[in-house]
Amino acid sequence: MTSGDILDTLRSALPDGAIDATDAAVLARSIDASGAAALGVARAVVRPRTTEEVAVVLRAADAAGVPVVPQGALSGLAGAANAVAGALLLDLTGMNRILRIDVDNRVAVVQPGVIVADLAQAAHDVGLFYAPDPASAALATVGGTVATNAGGMRCIKYGVTRDAVRSLELVLADGSIVRTRPDTIKGVAGLDLTALVVGSEGTLAVVTEATLTLLPAPGPSRGVCAVFPSLTAGVAAANAVAAGVHTPSTLELLDAIVLDAVSDYQPDAGIPSGAKSWLLAITDSASGADADLDAFEAIFREHGALSVHRADDPADLDGLLAARRLLFPAMRALRGSSLNGDASVPRSRLLEMVERLGALGDEFGVIVGVGGHVGDGNLHPVVAFDAADAAQVAAAHSAYQRISEIAQELGGTMTGEHGVGIEKLASLDGELPVRLREVQRQIKRIFDPNGILNPGKKY
Amino acid sequence: MTSGDILDTLRSALPDGAIDATDAAVLARSIDASGAAALGVARAVVRPRTTEEVAVVLRAADAAGVPVVPQGALSGLAGAANAVAGALLLDLTGMNRILRIDVDNRVAVVQPGVIVADLAQAAHDVGLFYAPDPASAALATVGGTVATNAGGMRCIKYGVTRDAVRSLELVLADGSIVRTRPDTIKGVAGLDLTALVVGSEGTLAVVTEATLTLLPAPGPSRGVCAVFPSLTAGVAAANAVAAGVHTPSTLELLDAIVLDAVSDYQPDAGIPSGAKSWLLAITDSASGADADLDAFEAIFREHGALSVHRADDPADLDGLLAARRLLFPAMRALRGSSLNGDASVPRSRLLEMVERLGALGDEFGVIVGVGGHVGDGNLHPVVAFDAADAAQVAAAHSAYQRISEIAQELGGTMTGEHGVGIEKLASLDGELPVRLREVQRQIKRIFDPNGILNPGKKY
Repeated sequence: MTSGDILDTLRSALPDGAIDATDAAVLARSIDASGAAALGVARAVVRPRTTEEVAVVLRAADAAGVPVVPQGALSGLAGAANAVAGALLLDLTGMNRILRIDVDNRVAVVQPGVIVADLAQAAHDVGLFYAPDPASAALATVGGTVATNAGGMRCIKYGVTRDAVRSLELVLADGSIVRTRPDTIKGVAGLDLTALVVGSEGTLAVVTEATLTLLPAPGPSRGVCAVFPSLTAGVAAANAVAAGVHTPSTLELLDAIVLDAVSDYQPDAGIPSGAKSWLLAITDSASGADADLDAFEAIFREHGALSVHRADDPADLDGLLAARRLLFPAMRALRGSSLNGDASVPRSRLLEMVERLGALGDEFGVIVGVGGHVGDGNLHPVVAFDAADAAQVAAAHSAYQRISEIAQELGGTMTGEHGVGIEKLASLDGELPVRLREVQRQIKRIFDPNGILNPGKKY
Repeated sequence: MTSGDILDTLRSALPDGAIDATDAAVLARSIDASGAAALGVARAVVRPRTTEEVAVVLRAADAAGVPVVPQGALSGLAGAANAVAGALLLDLTGMNRILRIDVDNRVAVVQPGVIVADLAQAAHDVGLFYAPDPASAALATVGGTVATNAGGMRCIKYGVTRDAVRSLELVLADGSIVRTRPDTIKGVAGLDLTALVVGSEGTLAVVTEATLTLLPAPGPSRGVCAVFPSLTAGVAAANAVAAGVHTPSTLELLDAIVLDAVSDYQPDAGIPSGAKSWLLAITDSASGADADLDAFEAIFREHGALSVHRADDPADLDGLLAARRLLFPAMRALRGSSLNGDASVPRSRLLEMVERLGALGDEFGVIVGVGGHVGDGNLHPVVAFDAADAAQVAAAHSAYQRISEIAQELGGTMTGEHGVGIEKLASLDGELPVRLREVQRQIKRIFDPNGILNPGKKY
C-alpha cells in the first residue's frame, strides 16, 4: 500500500481533520524533549478522538505494514515517541477526557491524553490524591507516563506510575480492543498484562483508557534542606534518612558541581560557600509531619550539615526546591547544551556512583554534575558541553554512554525512569541477559506480529 | 523417552537421594491444601538443592517432553501445585537458604523454599520488615507465594507479594538460567518480566532465587474490633475506614452466618447476640497509632456498633483476632466439609456482594458464610456442606461456581489472591477477554514451547 493509499483509507474512515500530512505538522511532532534525532520522516499526524478511531488506524496500518508511533505530549527524555520513517504519528493528546473520578473505589478512569497535572487537580478537588509526579507533570500525558512507567520525586514514598495503574484499555496492533482486568485492588486471574504494557513505550499496544488508583489526600508538604561540607556526608545523611522509620515523600541530592553551577546561574540562590552537597527531605504526613521533620533535621545535623533550613508550609518549601529546580537549566548554562542522564544503583553504591560520575567531567573534557532522587538510588547526571564544538559533542556522548556503564557496573540500570527509547538502546547489551532480550522480542511479536508499533525503539 | 529413561538420566546427573519415585513419596506431594483432585499420577518427586540442579531437571524434562510441576509447601488453595500425570514433582522446599539480608539496600535474597515466616523473622531480627503475610505464612514458601502472588491481611497497607519482589532468578523450560533485572528500586530497561512471572503459578519458569524488598520495622500492632446490628452498618463502617486518611494495616469483616458459626464452635468467643457483622481494624503505625485507633473507634461508633473492644498491645490483639481465625474451622464444623472461596469486587459493590453470597446458602441448600479482607474488597466466602451427601457435594460446587459469577457480575474477579490453579479454570471464561487469553497462551508458549511447565493449570 502506498502512502497515499493508507491516508486515503483513513481520511474516508475518520472525521475531517483527523489526518494532517503537512510537512509542518509532521515536523512539529517528530522529536521529543530528548532532542534525539528522529528515525526518519513520518508520513502524517493522526489525531483520533475515540478508542474506535484508534482501532481503525491500527487495523489499516497493520494491514498496510505502516509503522505507528503513539505520542503524548512529547515530553519524554529518551526519544521513545520520536518519528519513524513513513510512520503515522498517533497524536493521542486530543483524547483528553477524565471519564470518571470514583470516590468510593478511589479510582480515576481517564483517556490517555489527560495531562498528569490535570488529573492530580481533579483528584485534589474531591479530596483525593494522584501520586505519580514526574517533573513534566504540567505537560506530560497519562498515556505517556504509563508508556514509560514514569517516576518522579515522590516515588520514594508512593512508588512509580505502574504502582498506580489498576487496569488498561488497549488497542492491539491488529485493531482488537481489549481490557486488562481486574479493576479490583487484588486479582490474580491470568498473567499480569497490565504490568507488561506499563513501561513498554508504545511497542506492545496503544493505551486508550487507564484506570488509576487514587489515594487519600496527604497532609501539606513541608521540608528540611541542608548543605554539607563533603559529598560523603551528604550521601551518608541521605542514606540515614532513607533507612529510617520516618519515610520522606521526597529525598533529593545535588553534588558540588551542580551547586557551583546553580550559584553561577543564580547568585541569590543562597548556596553557602564550601557546600559540597545539598539534600532536601520533604514529608507530606497528615499526622506525623513534625516528628518527621525533627528526625530529618537531627540526621542532617549529626552528619555535620553546614546549614539547615526548614520550611513549615508549602509556600516556604518552594524556596527550598529552587536549587533542585535549577539542576537542568544551571548545568545547561555552563556550556550551552546538556545531555540529561537517568541511572539507578542500589543505595549502598550511591557514594561511589556520584564520585565516579563527578570525575567523568575531567576524563572526557566536559562537565558532569549529579542530582536526583537519591532516596530511590535514581540519579540524573547532567553532561554539560558546547554543541558548537564537534569534539565536545563527541566527548559528551562518550561521557553519557560511560554513565550507563558505571551504573551497570555498580549493579544498577542505565534507565531508572526515563525509558530506553532510542537513546539508551546501545546500553541494553550491558544490562539484560541475551536470553531475556530474546524473550522480550518474542513477546513483542505476539502483540505486534507485523512490527508496526513504534519500531526501532526499546528492544 | 520412557519413564525409566528420564529418571535414569536424572539419577546419574543429580546427587543421591534427589529422586524419589516411590508411590508413597509421589502420593504425599500430589495435592495441595485445596483438596482438589490431581490431574493424574506423577512420575517421581525430584528434590534439587541448587539452581544448576533445577536447570538439569528442566533440560532433561524439556528434551523428553515430561511435565514438571514446581512445588513449595503445598499450602496453595487452587490446586496450582497438584500433580499432573507422568510429571516430575519439583519439590523446591530443600532450597531453603536465606542467602543475604542486605540492611543498606533493604533487600533480602532468598531461595524459593524459604518459609515466609522464617524470612519475616530474619528481617525482624535486623530491625526490618517483610510485609507479605498470607494466612499460611508459617507453612508457605517464598517461591509459592511468588508463584501465586499471594495476598494476606496486610495488603490494604503494604500491597501484595508482587509489590515486594524486586527481581528474580529463573530457570526457563529449556534449562536457561536468567536474572530479571534490575535489583534497584527503579528501573525501566526492558519489559517487566518480573511482574509477568509473579503470579504465573509455575507455568512460565521456575523461580530459583528472589530479591525481595524489606521495609523499616513498623510499630507494634494494635486494633479495634466492633460488632454491628446489621450487615449494612458493618460494611458502611468498613468503607468509611478504608476511605479515611488513617490507613489500617488490616481491615477484616465477618458476616452474621460466620458469627453464628463461630458462636456455635466456640461459645466463649464472646460474640454478642444480635451481632450481624464484625469488623476489626488494626494499625501498625510507628508514630500515629493512637490517632488511628481513635479514628477507627469513632467510625465504628458512628455506624452504630453494638460493642467496641480495643487492644492496645499485640497480646490483647490476639484475642480480637480469635473470631477471624475461626472463620474456616467454624464454618467447616457446621456440616463437616467446606469449600473456601476467594473473590474480589470494587469496594462500592461490597454490600451487594456479601448480601448475595449470604443468600446463596438458601438457594443451593448449603451454608455460605463470608469473611475476609474487606479493605481490599477481597472476600473469602466459605461454602459448608456434608461431604457424605452426594446432593450436598454437587450443590456446594454449584454454589462455589456461582460465587465466581457474582464477583464477575459486580465488576470483580473470581480470584483475588489464591490463583487459578485447576479449581478456577472454569471461571476464566467469564473474566478475561478471549483475545487476551490467546495472548496469554502465546506468552506461555514463548517461555515453555513444549508445554512442560505445570500443564493443565492457569490458562
